[in-house]
Amino acid sequence: MEYLRNAWYVAALPDEVKQGEILGRRILGEYIALYRDNEGVARALIDRCSHRFAPLSLGKLTENGLECPYHGFRYNSSGECIHNPHGDGRVPARSSIRAYPTLERYNAIWIWMGEPDRADADLVPVFDFMNPDVNYVGAGYMHVEGNYLLENDNILDLSHIEFLHPVFSSPAVSRGEVSHEIVGDTVWSKRDIYNDETPPDFIRKVFNVPSGPVDRWLYVHWQAPSYLALEASGMASGQSRENAIGSMQVHWFTPETATTTHYWYGLTLPKSLGPPAEAVVQEDVKTLYVPFKLEDAPLIEGQQRNLGERDIMELKPIILNVDAAGNAARRILERLIAEEGAEASA
Amino acid sequence: MEYLRNAWYVAALPDEVKQGEILGRRILGEYIALYRDNEGVARALIDRCSHRFAPLSLGKLTENGLECPYHGFRYNSSGECIHNPHGDGRVPARSSIRAYPTLERYNAIWIWMGEPDRADADLVPVFDFMNPDVNYVGAGYMHVEGNYLLENDNILDLSHIEFLHPVFSSPAVSRGEVSHEIVGDTVWSKRDIYNDETPPDFIRKVFNVPSGPVDRWLYVHWQAPSYLALEASGMASGQSRENAIGSMQVHWFTPETATTTHYWYGLTLPKSLGPPAEAVVQEDVKTLYVPFKLEDAPLIEGQQRNLGERDIMELKPIILNVDAAGNAARRILERLIAEEGAEASA
Amino acid sequence: MEYLRNAWYVAALPDEVKQGEILGRRILGEYIALYRDNEGVARALIDRCSHRFAPLSLGKLTENGLECPYHGFRYNSSGECIHNPHGDGRVPARSSIRAYPTLERYNAIWIWMGEPDRADADLVPVFDFMNPDVNYVGAGYMHVEGNYLLENDNILDLSHIEFLHPVFSSPAVSRGEVSHEIVGDTVWSKRDIYNDETPPDFIRKVFNVPSGPVDRWLYVHWQAPSYLALEASGMASGQSRENAIGSMQVHWFTPETATTTHYWYGLTLPKSLGPPAEAVVQEDVKTLYVPFKLEDAPLIEGQQRNLGERDIMELKPIILNVDAAGNAARRILERLIAEEGAEASA
Repeated sequence: MEYLRNAWYVAALPDEVKQGEILGRRILGEYIALYRDNEGVARALIDRCSHRFAPLSLGKLTENGLECPYHGFRYNSSGECIHNPHGDGRVPARSSIRAYPTLERYNAIWIWMGEPDRADADLVPVFDFMNPDVNYVGAGYMHVEGNYLLENDNILDLSHIEFLHPVFSSPAVSRGEVSHEIVGDTVWSKRDIYNDETPPDFIRKVFNVPSGPVDRWLYVHWQAPSYLALEASGMASGQSRENAIGSMQVHWFTPETATTTHYWYGLTLPKSLGPPAEAVVQEDVKTLYVPFKLEDAPLIEGQQRNLGERDIMELKPIILNVDAAGNAARRILERLIAEEGAEASA
Repeated sequence: MEYLRNAWYVAALPDEVKQGEILGRRILGEYIALYRDNEGVARALIDRCSHRFAPLSLGKLTENGLECPYHGFRYNSSGECIHNPHGDGRVPARSSIRAYPTLERYNAIWIWMGEPDRADADLVPVFDFMNPDVNYVGAGYMHVEGNYLLENDNILDLSHIEFLHPVFSSPAVSRGEVSHEIVGDTVWSKRDIYNDETPPDFIRKVFNVPSGPVDRWLYVHWQAPSYLALEASGMASGQSRENAIGSMQVHWFTPETATTTHYWYGLTLPKSLGPPAEAVVQEDVKTLYVPFKLEDAPLIEGQQRNLGERDIMELKPIILNVDAAGNAARRILERLIAEEGAEASA
Repeated sequence: MEYLRNAWYVAALPDEVKQGEILGRRILGEYIALYRDNEGVARALIDRCSHRFAPLSLGKLTENGLECPYHGFRYNSSGECIHNPHGDGRVPARSSIRAYPTLERYNAIWIWMGEPDRADADLVPVFDFMNPDVNYVGAGYMHVEGNYLLENDNILDLSHIEFLHPVFSSPAVSRGEVSHEIVGDTVWSKRDIYNDETPPDFIRKVFNVPSGPVDRWLYVHWQAPSYLALEASGMASGQSRENAIGSMQVHWFTPETATTTHYWYGLTLPKSLGPPAEAVVQEDVKTLYVPFKLEDAPLIEGQQRNLGERDIMELKPIILNVDAAGNAARRILERLIAEEGAEASA
């Protein structure tokens, strides 16, 4: 499977890479060792020594890099072999290994899987709201046995809620129309829900509408390859939208392999709501885990079972209006991958 | 692997498909959703929505069909999409999915894996004796990690009993000759056992010969692709065969994949024997499970391990007289599959 | 993967093949049934009947051979079918199966995987010290998910000790130089360690130097395809080497498949040291298991993960002086395999 290479992918939540430990993780099919250097900066090296191809994630952290567990080659965070404890101690030519540009931002560690000199920090998609200084932030991780594009489709398609997630549903949700918009190389998918007389309890809590009908909306914004921001806002029906409480969420999908995905989800509430909102965020992260794990994941894994190694488009699926956002995203991503390939071979 | 397509295969025992539930099962490599409609009639649809290829077996039963768990497409039992809850609600062209003809007969749910318009109910092989109105019937299911033809061979070969199944054996069994006969496109395999002084206890019980020598015989009748009826009859030695008690049995094998098999076995005794015979049947189904699971299944799985993905004939096995029935069945089935292929490409 | 066929491989420790039992084991990708005949002599037949390819390891031991579990074919230890209980009882042509020459020597059962008539007992590599009459002998078995040549490399490379095995290390080990020598088609790898002030406790015990500095050395001798003898000797520093205590060890690797290995290790102390040395040997076998299992095995399995199905040389590893012995062994083995192939096709 071809991936967009010149892009930042989420590699881990900050907590997943602990000072003093090495995390081995597969990304876009490549085995990678993630760690923090002496200054606590997240770093990524290919998880494979240049000497005998031992996994560095089994090795040791040294001053500012990794030591191979097998023969003590040391690599700095640029992937340069800086220490060879054998023979005359000279560092052999060609002994450097691949270092992946990384940076930590928006409550995530990002990794650049393409040409290192194009790893521009400004290309990290903006998820300001995930900053714990601004918002209360909750986040979780899940491994899914399905292709990441099926996950993109899933979040961009706001029409599946009432079928797959009864706990989020109500007649007002079914009445709420879905729409989408393509803005440059990004896609918006929207669902507006009015006069919801019977919203689920946790919705009442998040939007602080203890009784009476609720107006709420879900706005998803997709950027290539698989970054999704979701605004879930709501308020008592009939009020001005300025009074709404907005919970900004993320869904970040990083291909592990062609048929498996690392999935991080996060949700936030404004700190301006005060400490009770923090508890709501932490509770909601757990609440969301249930449908994600028990409803979305089995479905996506079932799709993958039916697809085998094939891309969904090969099987000529029926196209509905609700697929417009997901398919637009697929086309944009396909074009970006093709452009990247053309550029590389030029 | 090529299969005979225009044939009824056993898909499940009636009890395996419960009213109000959906059973996902793979047959001939295809994922299938089995369920009962409102009238309790067993139905089968491909386990794959035409929209995003979600498994319908994760979905819901509706009036007379299935609702996709992902976006609520509804299919009737003919596989027609009859409800699209999105957009203008029109049902898209090409949105129908494959429905498999099914019927329930002889204590089994049968599925037709070939061209639907050739699914003639009269082509279901006759297993009248499996009718619970006529006989006491016991049945069980087992999953085996081996090709279904190895299972056909196994049952058609009555010579393996004294080697693989000591509990069924006695010197009289070893003396009992095996023979076979080809009748049209069916095969008979027979073993007659006389003057068995030391039959196993359960044999004495089934044939109601508490003491003294027993005459008994096993007659297997095979029809393509993998239906086997087995008559196990017996009586006190020297009596006329008219006085024998006959226990009719079935062995039904349905390919799950080229290297795995669904195996249903059943046994019966005439209701004329009265209620105690019912207990004997239920006990015997449990008795038979032991050698099937602990003796036959590991052996067949060991054969498959040695064959890998190859058909047994590719490895040029030694052919004995005891293989005549199994090999005749293989040749008939091969010819039927070839004829079907020729017809399809004509 | 191509293997050296005309060679003795270790198939099992004597204890692994118990009188009256059949051990199924895969060697060089082939399924093999190991057993002892009436005289207790270890024997090996292909684990596959010539009739229906049932595994003989599920069968029975007979006088001097195996009986197939399925139809009672009996094979003698030469692989000849000597009994067919069916039909006229004649043994069919072509019904013999492959017998593998075996012999028991040096506390191991050896199997010849090549042309049987070239199975010269004199070709078994000499491991006299493994004879329990001469030495106290301890041995163990481990299954490793990695190619056997990675294991060869591992033992031939004595430089990895201080990195992978801190428990065996000390500054003196790091100072100790590694060297190698090619002698005919064998390879020596050596490391001499002088004035070790802080050897691990078990080293003090084995070499009986309760206090003060220790001189010790590790000399590995490799022969194709994967036999390694290791001399670990030591004494109080400054003494003549004649006073050293030598613990001879073996590392025997037999490919199970291209990516999995059977690993037997053994260690010995001279009986002349008296009964306490026996306890030391048995304790040391357990001591060694820990780093082999927790340090070497995960590393080799990690290398294999990074290599996939590729040979390490395809990935152009960096070559250090410490790899000289392992690489020399690889070149010798490669040449021997090529010669064998040329001979076979001549």
